[in-house]
Amino acid sequence: MEQQLPIKIVLDSWYTTISRANELFNSLTEEQLQNEVSPGRNTGTYLLGHLTAVHDRMLPLLGLGAQRFPQLDDVFLTSPDKSGKSKPSITELRAYWKEVNEALAASFRNMQPAEWLQKHTSVSEVDFVKEPHRNRLNVLISRTNHLSSHYGQLLFLKK
Amino acid sequence: MEQQLPIKIVLDSWYTTISRANELFNSLTEEQLQNEVSPGRNTGTYLLGHLTAVHDRMLPLLGLGAQRFPQLDDVFLTSPDKSGKSKPSITELRAYWKEVNEALAASFRNMQPAEWLQKHTSVSEVDFVKEPHRNRLNVLISRTNHLSSHYGQLLFLKK
Repeated sequence: MEQQLPIKIVLDSWYTTISRANELFNSLTEEQLQNEVSPGRNTGTYLLGHLTAVHDRMLPLLGLGAQRFPQLDDVFLTSPDKSGKSKPSITELRAYWKEVNEALAASFRNMQPAEWLQKHTSVSEVDFVKEPHRNRLNVLISRTNHLSSHYGQLLFLKK
Repeated sequence: MEQQLPIKIVLDSWYTTISRANELFNSLTEEQLQNEVSPGRNTGTYLLGHLTAVHDRMLPLLGLGAQRFPQLDDVFLTSPDKSGKSKPSITELRAYWKEVNEALAASFRNMQPAEWLQKHTSVSEVDFVKEPHRNRLNVLISRTNHLSSHYGQLLFLKK
């Protein structure tokens, strides 16, 4: 059995999903991003910040470095959209989104396939022995699905 | 490097995503499913039929058997929601959804990890030699993301 191929396929799926999201975000105007994806639901701006914060936190979770923009957590992870908390501008959020995904890609390029099966940093050594599936690959797959889910919602911002 | 673990993780992600979707569909009333997920977009009923048709087609695509409900293709794949074509009842669609996913699960349980790296049926033997990533695992990952994307939309049907 080819050992590296499953890892490559999962990574390709991540990059494809990121590319689609980039294409969508790039096609949306500031005005469109300020709209709710469905009446009473999150705005595009909030989802852009939310996805940026979630991806940013993948850096420490995968043991690849520190979060770049920890200040996003309070606004986009622990608070809902209409919290009244001050948000960065859409221009800033677009730049953060790009930077975070590029930092992840730079780290991923240096990783060997076997490194994807190493534990992520939220599981203890003891638990990891019993639950070897709690590894970096699992995080990547989970975050790909998370992005897909919000991507489906963000599509509604298009005319 | 553990060879079976990546396959197990991808399969777990499929089952988790299916479970979440089942929980959501089970929690939605007929009336809620008849609503559009966002103004002017697909109804829950259409998305239930669409997902059922896509998953049904995974059976032949993965070389696991014939489609159970080929009559869904015309209504839910090649036609848009408001085509005017007659749709099965929501009760029927719920039953088809359940049957198709159970048929897939029954086949998946009998598959060895290495079988996931075999080609799917839409790629030729010749092309597969050059592009070994066009395998069953790739289809599974792609369909998991497809389901996640529509799941994110279907959440809007909840109050």
